Amino acid sequence: MARDDETTIFTKILRNEIPCHRVYEDDHVLAFLDINPIARGHTLVIPREPAVTLDQLSAESAAAIGAVLPRIARAVMAATGAKAFNILQNNGAEAHQAVMHVHFHVIPKHADGSGLGIGWKVEKLGDVADLAKAIADAV
Amino acid sequence: MARDDETTIFTKILRNEIPCHRVYEDDHVLAFLDINPIARGHTLVIPREPAVTLDQLSAESAAAIGAVLPRIARAVMAATGAKAFNILQNNGAEAHQAVMHVHFHVIPKHADGSGLGIGWKVEKLGDVADLAKAIADAV
Repeated sequence: MARDDETTIFTKILRNEIPCHRVYEDDHVLAFLDINPIARGHTLVIPREPAVTLDQLSAESAAAIGAVLPRIARAVMAATGAKAFNILQNNGAEAHQAVMHVHFHVIPKHADGSGLGIGWKVEKLGDVADLAKAIADAV
Repeated sequence: MARDDETTIFTKILRNEIPCHRVYEDDHVLAFLDINPIARGHTLVIPREPAVTLDQLSAESAAAIGAVLPRIARAVMAATGAKAFNILQNNGAEAHQAVMHVHFHVIPKHADGSGLGIGWKVEKLGDVADLAKAIADAV
């Protein structure tokens, strides 16, 4: 499914059918506070384009989001006093995606420990020359 | 610290002083396999610009990374067969940043469960109207 079905909560926010705590918008991008935050200042940055996952998003919308992420991150840090933060963007239910419209989480990591928890289990690299070539050929 | 000290492992990779499994490059961006993967196909996307954290990165470099993330994600999925993936970008040691040069992780979520583990503890939203305004004013 390349496009959302235009019935996600984010689509309704984009259409102003339901309210949000808006922090930024431009022609391609809307940013607002997550209604289910894992840290104070937890912000979502979404494209207006109705793509479900990042691999389906146009380069134009993806560039627009990329361009504003530093600004939004600076603003979240300034307003909350956080000194560290994570950007997280999930694609597919198996990867923890809950709303089927592309969204980037900007999550402050606060001194009280609130923020993103990360599970990191390193694997053996092995011989990945062929894999690297396969990816490079597919980009 | 706005700029890295140009002695990170990524700086050395950018200078071709040490090798990497390269999968993509352009004037602003380099992508290569993570040498300590948490999933097969775990790829890093970095700017050539020597910023430590995303909030310090130029909009130009950030847009360039944003623009290529969908392409690289598609290629990683095609080459590994993964159907889901996460984008993660950490800023500050408290937020799990290990190399002090901006990097975006593209992490496939495989059927065997390998990939990113996510700790997600939702907080009460509370009254965030003032916070939203403070962030919006700072963007």
